[in-house]
Amino acid sequence: MKTANKLTIINDPIYGFITIPNGLIFNLIEHKYFQRLRRISQMGLSYLVYPGAHHTRFHHAIGCVHIMQKALEKLEQKGVRVSSEEKEATMAAILLHDIGHGPFSHAMENSIAEGVHHEQISLQFMEQLNDEFNGNLTLALKIFKGTYHRPFLHQLVSGQLDMDRTDYLKRDSFYTGMAEGNINTDRILAMLNVKDDELMVEEKGIYTIEKFLVARRLMYWQVYLHKTSLVAEQVLVKVLKRAKYLTESGQVLPASKALSYFLKKKNAEGVFDQEALEVFSNLDDYDIISAMKSWCDADDFVLSTLCKIIIDRKLPRIKIKKKPFKKEFIQEERERVKVHYDITDEEVDYFVFTGTLTNQAYTLKKEAINILTKKGKVIDVISASDQLSLKALSKVITKNYICYPKHLN
Amino acid sequence: MKTANKLTIINDPIYGFITIPNGLIFNLIEHKYFQRLRRISQMGLSYLVYPGAHHTRFHHAIGCVHIMQKALEKLEQKGVRVSSEEKEATMAAILLHDIGHGPFSHAMENSIAEGVHHEQISLQFMEQLNDEFNGNLTLALKIFKGTYHRPFLHQLVSGQLDMDRTDYLKRDSFYTGMAEGNINTDRILAMLNVKDDELMVEEKGIYTIEKFLVARRLMYWQVYLHKTSLVAEQVLVKVLKRAKYLTESGQVLPASKALSYFLKKKNAEGVFDQEALEVFSNLDDYDIISAMKSWCDADDFVLSTLCKIIIDRKLPRIKIKKKPFKKEFIQEERERVKVHYDITDEEVDYFVFTGTLTNQAYTLKKEAINILTKKGKVIDVISASDQLSLKALSKVITKNYICYPKHLN
Amino acid sequence: MKTANKLTIINDPIYGFITIPNGLIFNLIEHKYFQRLRRISQMGLSYLVYPGAHHTRFHHAIGCVHIMQKALEKLEQKGVRVSSEEKEATMAAILLHDIGHGPFSHAMENSIAEGVHHEQISLQFMEQLNDEFNGNLTLALKIFKGTYHRPFLHQLVSGQLDMDRTDYLKRDSFYTGMAEGNINTDRILAMLNVKDDELMVEEKGIYTIEKFLVARRLMYWQVYLHKTSLVAEQVLVKVLKRAKYLTESGQVLPASKALSYFLKKKNAEGVFDQEALEVFSNLDDYDIISAMKSWCDADDFVLSTLCKIIIDRKLPRIKIKKKPFKKEFIQEERERVKVHYDITDEEVDYFVFTGTLTNQAYTLKKEAINILTKKGKVIDVISASDQLSLKALSKVITKNYICYPKHLN
Amino acid sequence: MKTANKLTIINDPIYGFITIPNGLIFNLIEHKYFQRLRRISQMGLSYLVYPGAHHTRFHHAIGCVHIMQKALEKLEQKGVRVSSEEKEATMAAILLHDIGHGPFSHAMENSIAEGVHHEQISLQFMEQLNDEFNGNLTLALKIFKGTYHRPFLHQLVSGQLDMDRTDYLKRDSFYTGMAEGNINTDRILAMLNVKDDELMVEEKGIYTIEKFLVARRLMYWQVYLHKTSLVAEQVLVKVLKRAKYLTESGQVLPASKALSYFLKKKNAEGVFDQEALEVFSNLDDYDIISAMKSWCDADDFVLSTLCKIIIDRKLPRIKIKKKPFKKEFIQEERERVKVHYDITDEEVDYFVFTGTLTNQAYTLKKEAINILTKKGKVIDVISASDQLSLKALSKVITKNYICYPKHLN
Repeated sequence: MKTANKLTIINDPIYGFITIPNGLIFNLIEHKYFQRLRRISQMGLSYLVYPGAHHTRFHHAIGCVHIMQKALEKLEQKGVRVSSEEKEATMAAILLHDIGHGPFSHAMENSIAEGVHHEQISLQFMEQLNDEFNGNLTLALKIFKGTYHRPFLHQLVSGQLDMDRTDYLKRDSFYTGMAEGNINTDRILAMLNVKDDELMVEEKGIYTIEKFLVARRLMYWQVYLHKTSLVAEQVLVKVLKRAKYLTESGQVLPASKALSYFLKKKNAEGVFDQEALEVFSNLDDYDIISAMKSWCDADDFVLSTLCKIIIDRKLPRIKIKKKPFKKEFIQEERERVKVHYDITDEEVDYFVFTGTLTNQAYTLKKEAINILTKKGKVIDVISASDQLSLKALSKVITKNYICYPKHLN
Repeated sequence: MKTANKLTIINDPIYGFITIPNGLIFNLIEHKYFQRLRRISQMGLSYLVYPGAHHTRFHHAIGCVHIMQKALEKLEQKGVRVSSEEKEATMAAILLHDIGHGPFSHAMENSIAEGVHHEQISLQFMEQLNDEFNGNLTLALKIFKGTYHRPFLHQLVSGQLDMDRTDYLKRDSFYTGMAEGNINTDRILAMLNVKDDELMVEEKGIYTIEKFLVARRLMYWQVYLHKTSLVAEQVLVKVLKRAKYLTESGQVLPASKALSYFLKKKNAEGVFDQEALEVFSNLDDYDIISAMKSWCDADDFVLSTLCKIIIDRKLPRIKIKKKPFKKEFIQEERERVKVHYDITDEEVDYFVFTGTLTNQAYTLKKEAINILTKKGKVIDVISASDQLSLKALSKVITKNYICYPKHLN
Repeated sequence: MKTANKLTIINDPIYGFITIPNGLIFNLIEHKYFQRLRRISQMGLSYLVYPGAHHTRFHHAIGCVHIMQKALEKLEQKGVRVSSEEKEATMAAILLHDIGHGPFSHAMENSIAEGVHHEQISLQFMEQLNDEFNGNLTLALKIFKGTYHRPFLHQLVSGQLDMDRTDYLKRDSFYTGMAEGNINTDRILAMLNVKDDELMVEEKGIYTIEKFLVARRLMYWQVYLHKTSLVAEQVLVKVLKRAKYLTESGQVLPASKALSYFLKKKNAEGVFDQEALEVFSNLDDYDIISAMKSWCDADDFVLSTLCKIIIDRKLPRIKIKKKPFKKEFIQEERERVKVHYDITDEEVDYFVFTGTLTNQAYTLKKEAINILTKKGKVIDVISASDQLSLKALSKVITKNYICYPKHLN
Repeated sequence: MKTANKLTIINDPIYGFITIPNGLIFNLIEHKYFQRLRRISQMGLSYLVYPGAHHTRFHHAIGCVHIMQKALEKLEQKGVRVSSEEKEATMAAILLHDIGHGPFSHAMENSIAEGVHHEQISLQFMEQLNDEFNGNLTLALKIFKGTYHRPFLHQLVSGQLDMDRTDYLKRDSFYTGMAEGNINTDRILAMLNVKDDELMVEEKGIYTIEKFLVARRLMYWQVYLHKTSLVAEQVLVKVLKRAKYLTESGQVLPASKALSYFLKKKNAEGVFDQEALEVFSNLDDYDIISAMKSWCDADDFVLSTLCKIIIDRKLPRIKIKKKPFKKEFIQEERERVKVHYDITDEEVDYFVFTGTLTNQAYTLKKEAINILTKKGKVIDVISASDQLSLKALSKVITKNYICYPKHLN
């Protein structure tokens, strides 16, 4: 990547070449806040199941910019007027939409960084960058927050058919090798249109949308909620909770400066203060994994055992069912583990635990996907396709799981 | 392709290499009946819409053999016993399953060759080949007809999830460039299993099946029933009907020997006699297209006009609606055309006509797709997936269309 | 494809979507001269070896327009000024560059249409179309002929690295399944530049060029000159020569009007007259294949035997060697065939024949590929890459072959 | 991955499904030595240039097993006898061939772990594993070392056309998005044969081999030796050297246990002792990157500056030329940096430095690629292809580079 007066070209296994326009977008990519995303895995610990899935949030964000650029070009070809300021701002907004993600976000948000959502952190980083870039991100911020008067720009950044989802479904399907999750980006982009500043899908794109939603659900159940990824992530939550508990109890665990800060920190209420934000900007996967590697030798039995489970990939057993597990069964497993490990009831919670999974491919009410008919009418995709299976896709599915150690003998 | 004592390798854009075992399969491929399929387009006139779709029934049949071979290997790895005789016979059955297809089959079956279905002709060809090959196709015939005592072999040849569909969906999606119809053959094959000699899909394959059915429906509505292909095929039916009518009226139209035979022939009742079968074995796309090319200069206004419509690709307008078209509208169009062309009422039928389209992605009752649960129970895919959208896929969809000339001025 | 005031989109298995601008290009595609290319196989009889290779010259020409459009866009991004007239004309020139191809061109040019090269016929068709389109192709003709004052536009149409080659290498490699011939179109286009109105390749593109030339040579030896395609084409030449000889001897062979015309016609000297051009515009693969199908029943032993060789794919043996075959060996084979078939010495020439193959991946002198160094100097690719293997690629390779019937017993 | 009595299936973006036979291979993969490779990037810091290139040595090793399995199957189909013991041992040998790689191997071997080559470490790990697995790796070790009496098995593991190269070229080309480096694995495997227990390529595979070698060279110059990767790797060497120097001077730098050990350790002479090996088995990319992250705040100006260069991706300028750089030019740059940073002459060495690059696509003498002619003769690929460009590929190319900080103002 160069600052010279020409386009910067990035090789991408998915789109071939990605061309980054110089100026704001290029300078944002060069910023250390954004470079940090190179060290944040897009799919958390999923690589323990899909060894190809080592792609990063950096790469995803760049991919989003690429298809956003294409989407806006397509819309312009169809007569939708988009000013160059709007274009740059929308591209900046999608570039930065995930900048607040921490390492293994979902695990962190359920352990040491409870109380602050990654979208909030993205917003805080964007505001900070807006200061550094002399207000050049003001419009991007409006679009990101959905307060700009042309809603379709926000819908392209964040909605049921946004460029974020379009890229991550394609990218995650590609890197996991789960070819069935693949979606036809070109066709999706070709089907977009705008009416009264709202994002629409042209009527002939209805099968494409259905396929998109089916692919999305498939990716949820077979990849994102894959039981082995799930169990790995849950163990990671337990590791971080235990480390925080031990730290609060006065123990000093080896950890990077940034991770130590968050182990000690009281949970924030909704937002980070300036200090927390700055420290957070130094936190990435390497802090977490390195800490776990050293904690494999920790004195605390619970912590060291949990860390080895992840580092050496000796994952617990997980079972998934439609109905909740019986209390007796859970109690039995707890007892076995308690005796086997010789640990307390509280400590058993780290090894035997239950929870629920839920997924809904299409949300009926908010952020509907609008279909623009050939005659110019606007209808929701569900009613547009009464013969189709979309209604079924909007049903909420809930499943129950239990995790407990295997190979106890 | 060689007869030498080694495997014959065929390059295939889809599967890479296809390896044909010598012996029966190889010799069947070499037979002129099978070589004829090189001259029969797999997708009829669809290449008028999708210029890449020039692949042939020959290529499809070879592809089917390839995945049948893989499917049987997978089943054997799972402990399903298949004898080498059964293997060869099943591969022969799938190789020959379409050998009775004529040029533009659907058009022919609705015009000059009414009354004999292509599956019947395939059967007659197979019986003839069985004589030539000294009874070596006896088992293949049983499997093809579904009378063999192990139903899964027939189900692999012909069923809701057979190797025929598996190949043609993948192949047609590939050659049309309609990437959304692509299916994951490897995964489908990996999910197959057999219980009590019935073909099953393993429970974890349920999303794969859903995706297969969604892809299939998408291909129907966006490709197989694409309105431009549809109108081209309907015009072809009209051409052949007109040519037959003129022949019956005593006119001699230039045509190949084989085509002339069928223009003159009375419609058969269910089966071909030996003579018709032999003549049919010489009939292919080249007879039809060449005849239309020469009929562009025919004296008959209706015939020459219809032929030019196809040869020069000046296709009529087609409209598709859920509800039937109003009689007044149809009558109005007929009147316009009658006056414009100065033709009789009967002749107007060749230019203005209506019809219905119908499609059902999954047939509920017969030939259900059976799901084999982890615990060994067998259930239909619909009940296995109450949370899924498969029920919707089994709904019959019907649409109406009307065709009439455009650019009348 | 529609005439409406919007872009026409064509699905392409290779490039995804191809967008055809309305106006001149769209109208040329709709013309019956161009529609004829739908019935002309891009690779002649190669589908007898590569069953996937049924793509047409129509599809190739459309593909060329697509990448020409992209190439011109890239050049504009680099600051090369191209007017919209130049753009349209260059796209028209590449669209029509092959419009003069007849069915199985190389075979025809060596038999019934000797004396007129397909490039000459393309030129005549273009001039005719220029009249029909009121002079709108005047600039396209200049570019096609290389008389326009900006040579790079001609070089993009016809040169060592033109869009014709770039498309056909990619397309033929794709449809044959010979993945090794695949080239990176995107990268090639990204490396193009223009200096002093001459087409250049940027220095960093040197490995891309080398790979292009290696792929091209590979396609020549493994696909275009594949011995089975070669022998099929040679037999086709013999068929047409025999048919012409018999016609000249007074026999009347069944054939389409257009083919009959050329069987009777004296060979032209360099150009077609108006009548020949018009008849030629009706000649395509269907005339040739249909004629061969009917000639399988011809009285003439030589003609019927040769036709069955192709139609039923019972091809002769072919041997290829660096050194010429010995006279004694050739004579021996001739004698065997003469006795076996009981034919005359002249007739043996149709069954036993020899020839040479030649190929040169890169032509040293004319139409060099120019490399533009980072410092702005222009050098030939050979000297730019003294460390590379390009010099070797410019060596002329010649091989000898002999064909004779197999299975004589 | 399961231990149950069935095949373990791994999704792979490149080969689709990889099937791992249970038993030895599965158990080796589960071992923590092998799991460590999940944390070692296959291409070092190349992801700073190619953001998709985050694949790991773990994934590569699994891929090697997959194609080794296929290669052995192909050979068996051709009549080469391979016992099941030999098969398992060869697969184990390729699985473990890279197990001795440390994090950023080339950088480490040039800094803190000088004196011990990664192949030696692989051997030591394999011997250790052989003890743990009760001698089950004895045959694998023989094959790995090349002392087994059937050389082709070793040649498949390590030679000019081994499964290691075949996988990494394909994989690296895939993940970088450098499509031109793609090779046709299926075809390469299909061309392998064995004569007198030596690995051969069949004559018809000669263009495939040439394409393989051209792709390999392209990957070297455009990817492996990409100037930005190169400069990043050189800076990493400097970081590690500086850290070792500071440690030797008595400073205590924050680092993981394993990294601290190697910073303190005297360079070994050829082999690791047992303790070093054990510590090494805990060292991976996370140790190095985490250390650099914390060293960004180090007191030492040189160390902190170099670390920020990598972590924030503010890389120095690098120039590459055929001829060596002039002493005056180097001296000038050194002087500028010395003044600008106010550092000593010795410290300038960390910021301004020169070196040479070298690459040879095909090594003429040792480990020739043998071609097996149709007549059964064995010749080297160079003489087999006198008309080809292979001789050029065996020429050694050397280039010079200089690195120095940019943006000094």
